[in-house]
Amino acid sequence: MAPSLRPRPLPRALFFSLIPVALWLLFRPLLDPVPPLPALHASLGFSIFALLGTLYLVPALGSTFVCAGLKGRDLLKVSDDPIPESLGLVCASLYILLLILFTPFAFSDVFTHHIEESVRKPREGLVVSEFPHYQLSVYLSSLLSLLIATMLGFLDDVFDIRWRHKLPIPIIASIPLLMVYYSERGNTDVVVPIPLRWLFGSLLNLGPLYYVYMSLLSTFCTNSINILAGINGSEVSQALVIALSVILNDLLYLPWPIGFRIALPLHLLGRPAEVDVGGVWHAGMAYGSRVLVERHLFSLYFMLPLVGVCAGFMYHNRYPARVFPGDTLCYVTGMAFAVVGIQAHFSKTLLLFFLPQIFNFVLSCPQLFGLVPCPRHRVPRFEAETALLHPSRAEFKDRLPSHLATIVLRIFSWFGFVELAEDPHTKTIMSTTNLTILNVFLLRFGPMREDSLVRVLICSQVAGSMLAFVVRYGLAGLLYDGNRR
Amino acid sequence: MAPSLRPRPLPRALFFSLIPVALWLLFRPLLDPVPPLPALHASLGFSIFALLGTLYLVPALGSTFVCAGLKGRDLLKVSDDPIPESLGLVCASLYILLLILFTPFAFSDVFTHHIEESVRKPREGLVVSEFPHYQLSVYLSSLLSLLIATMLGFLDDVFDIRWRHKLPIPIIASIPLLMVYYSERGNTDVVVPIPLRWLFGSLLNLGPLYYVYMSLLSTFCTNSINILAGINGSEVSQALVIALSVILNDLLYLPWPIGFRIALPLHLLGRPAEVDVGGVWHAGMAYGSRVLVERHLFSLYFMLPLVGVCAGFMYHNRYPARVFPGDTLCYVTGMAFAVVGIQAHFSKTLLLFFLPQIFNFVLSCPQLFGLVPCPRHRVPRFEAETALLHPSRAEFKDRLPSHLATIVLRIFSWFGFVELAEDPHTKTIMSTTNLTILNVFLLRFGPMREDSLVRVLICSQVAGSMLAFVVRYGLAGLLYDGNRR
Repeated sequence: MAPSLRPRPLPRALFFSLIPVALWLLFRPLLDPVPPLPALHASLGFSIFALLGTLYLVPALGSTFVCAGLKGRDLLKVSDDPIPESLGLVCASLYILLLILFTPFAFSDVFTHHIEESVRKPREGLVVSEFPHYQLSVYLSSLLSLLIATMLGFLDDVFDIRWRHKLPIPIIASIPLLMVYYSERGNTDVVVPIPLRWLFGSLLNLGPLYYVYMSLLSTFCTNSINILAGINGSEVSQALVIALSVILNDLLYLPWPIGFRIALPLHLLGRPAEVDVGGVWHAGMAYGSRVLVERHLFSLYFMLPLVGVCAGFMYHNRYPARVFPGDTLCYVTGMAFAVVGIQAHFSKTLLLFFLPQIFNFVLSCPQLFGLVPCPRHRVPRFEAETALLHPSRAEFKDRLPSHLATIVLRIFSWFGFVELAEDPHTKTIMSTTNLTILNVFLLRFGPMREDSLVRVLICSQVAGSMLAFVVRYGLAGLLYDGNRR
Repeated sequence: MAPSLRPRPLPRALFFSLIPVALWLLFRPLLDPVPPLPALHASLGFSIFALLGTLYLVPALGSTFVCAGLKGRDLLKVSDDPIPESLGLVCASLYILLLILFTPFAFSDVFTHHIEESVRKPREGLVVSEFPHYQLSVYLSSLLSLLIATMLGFLDDVFDIRWRHKLPIPIIASIPLLMVYYSERGNTDVVVPIPLRWLFGSLLNLGPLYYVYMSLLSTFCTNSINILAGINGSEVSQALVIALSVILNDLLYLPWPIGFRIALPLHLLGRPAEVDVGGVWHAGMAYGSRVLVERHLFSLYFMLPLVGVCAGFMYHNRYPARVFPGDTLCYVTGMAFAVVGIQAHFSKTLLLFFLPQIFNFVLSCPQLFGLVPCPRHRVPRFEAETALLHPSRAEFKDRLPSHLATIVLRIFSWFGFVELAEDPHTKTIMSTTNLTILNVFLLRFGPMREDSLVRVLICSQVAGSMLAFVVRYGLAGLLYDGNRR
C-alpha cells in the first residue's frame, strides 16, 4: 500500500481527554440538581461519542469494505491504489444507533420528572420540560426515514443504480415522515408572505400539496449534496457547514441565562434590524413560545451527532482522501436536513443554507435534463505534471447544440459560469466546460490544487450561510410580520 | 443459462384476479357502513400486494443481484450455474414498505371516526375501535427493529460476517424495541406459574431482566431460523408455517360474529379442555378484554403481509431453487416473530411454535460451542449418481473427542439423533453425523431427495405447531389459571 493511502494516525490524546467529558455529559442528567435541559446534555455526550466512534471505526473497517468490492480509484491522483468506498455507511449506522440510544433521554419521564418538581419553584421566564410525550412517534418516524435513506444509499453503492432511477429514492425514504404526519393529522398550513396576502389570506392550507412539498424537500436536500461531489472531502464538508449553520440557528431559539442583542448592519435598508437573544423570557427568538423551543431542541438533537460523525469522517476523507463516502453519506445527511426542516418547521430557513447547492443545481440542469451532453464524471480534469485541477469539458460530438442549449450556454458564458469553444467559421458551440460550481471556481480563480478547491468550496458554503442569516433575520421582516415561521 | 435456472413462469391469471380483490380490501374501509375492523381489511389488501409484489420482483431483480456479486452455488445440485443470493432483501424491503404504508390505516382517525359514531348505537358485546393512538410509537419502533434486522442481514450477506460476530446482531436490532418500551415505562411483570407461586407470588417484576429476556428472544428467533438452513426452501417454509400458526392463534382472540366451541381430546388428563371462540362477548378467547384484542390485531398486522412475502418467495425458492434468500430473510422473519411475541405479549406461546428450531438448536450446541468439530457447511451430503441426500459427517481429525463430547455424542446416539463411527480397537469416536435436524431426518427415514427432505421438515413444523396448540390451550391450565397471558 502506498504510504499516502495508509490510514491517518489517530489523535490518541483527544480520545482519552474526550471520553470522560462525554461520560459526564451522559450521566449529568441523572444527578441533582437536574440541569434545565437534561436531554441536551446527553445529546452533546452522544455527539462526542459519534465523533470518536467515526474517527476509530472508519479506518478500522476500510479493509473489510475493500474485500467486499466496495472500493474506488481516486480520479484526481497519480496513484492507482484502490481506496475504500461507501464508508458513509459506517457514519450513518453509528449516527442512527446513537439517535436510537438517545430516545429515553429525550422522551422518558425518568429524566423529566425531576424537572416537574423544580417547575413548582417560582422562576422568571419560560420553563422547558423537554419534549412532550406524543412527539415520540415523530422522532421514530424521522429515524425510520434516516434508516431508509441509509439503506437506499448503500443499495445504490452496491448495485450502482442509474442516475434517473436514483431521483425518486429520497421520496421513498420520506414516506414514514409523511405517514406519521398524516396519522397525527399534522398541520398543512403555511404563512403567506405579506405581498401575497391580498390574494391568499395570511394562512394558506396546502392540504395534499404540503405532502408533495415535504417529499420534494427531501429529494432536493439529498440529491443536491450528491451532485456537488467528486473531490476529496466535498460531500462531508458541505454537510458539516450546513449542520453547523442549522445548530447556530437553533441556538437563537433556546432559553439562555443571559440576554444579549445582535444588531445587523442593515441601516442602508432603512430599518435597523436587531435580534434579541435571551432576555426576560429566557427563550431567545422563541419569545416565550414553548412550541418553538421544542422544535429547535428537536433539530439540535439530530444535528449535534451529525456534526460529530461528519467531523470524524472529514478527518479521514480530507485531501488526500483515505476513504470515500459513497452515496450513503450524501443520502443520510441530506435526509437529516430534510427531517429537521420538516419536523421543526423551518424548511424555508433551511433552504437558505443550501445556496451553493441551489446554484450548482440550477447550473447543472441543462446537463441533468439532456440539453447539454453529460459525461459520466463531471469532476475537474487532473493534470498529473502540475498536480493542478482544470475545468473539465463536455463535447458536442454526435449532435450540434439545439437553439435552446445555445441560448442557455451563451447566458451562462456571459455571467462567466462556463467557457465555450466555438467553431471559428460557423460560431457553433463545439464544447463547454461542465456545468458545476467546481468548474466555475476553477474558471474564475484559475487552475488550483485539489485541497485549495475544497477550501474555496467550504468558504463559499460559509459565505452562503452568513448571507442566509442576514436574509432570514434582516430581510425576512419585509415579507413576513413578527409571527415568523 | 441452464433451463432449470430460468425464472419460474409467473401465474398471470392469479395476478389479474387478485389485484381487484386487494384494491377492494384497501378501499372498503372508506365506504359506509364501515366494517367492524377496517384496518384488518387494509392489512389483508396489503398482504395480497405483498404476495404479488414478491412473486414479480424476485425474478425481475435476480440478474441485478448476480451482477453485484450476490450469487451462490447450489451445493446440492449437479449444475454449477450461479444462483442469485440474498433475494430475501427484496422480500424484507417490500414487507417493511407495505407496513409503513399501512400506518395511517391502523392509526389515523380518518378511519376510526366512522366507528366512533357507530359505537353510540347499542350493540351486544365488545366494540373494538382498533388501535389506541399511543401505540403508534410501539408500531414505529417495531418497524425500526425490522429495518435494522434487514440492514444487518444484508450487511452479513455482503461482508460475510463470521459466525461468532453474528450472534449479537439481533440484539442491536432489538434496541429500538427496548428503548421505546423503556420510554413508555412498559410493564416488566410476568405471571408466575401456579407451582412456583408459593415462592414468587402471582406476579413477578423482572425489571432490567425483562429487557435481557426481550433481546434474547429476538436473538433466538433470528438465529434459530438461520441455523436450520441449507436446503432449498427450508428457511422460508419454516417462517411461513410459524407465521400461519401465529395468525391462527391471533384469530382465536378476535371478535367473531358467531360463537363456537372446540373440544380438545384431553380427557385422558382428567379434565376436558374446551376452548370457547366467539360467544356473547364477541371477542373470542379475549373474554371481553379490549387490550387482548388489540394486541392480537397488532400481531395480525405484522403476520399477514409476512405470509404474503413468504408465500411469494417460496414460489421461486422451492426445489429446485431459482433464488436464495440469504441471511436477510432469516433475520427479518425472525425479528418479525420476536416483535409480535414481545409487543403483543405472547412470547411463551410463540416459543411453542419454534419446537423444531429449539430441538435443532439444542442438538447443534455441541458444534456451535466447539465441543465437536464444526465444518463450514453442515448441510446433508449430495450424491450426484442417485440425486439423494445422505447425512453429512464431522470428523475428529486433529484432536480426539473430549470426555464431555464423548458423553454427549453417546447420549445423542442412544436417542438415534447421530450415527457415530468408532475406532474398532479403542472404541474412540472418529466421526459423527452433523448435529442438525436435517441429518436426523435422513438418519431416521433413510436417504431421500432434497424436495422430500423439505417436505419432511415442513411436516415436522406443522406437527410442532399442532402440539403447541394442544399444550397452550390444553395443558397450560395446569400451570396457569384463567388469567392466561
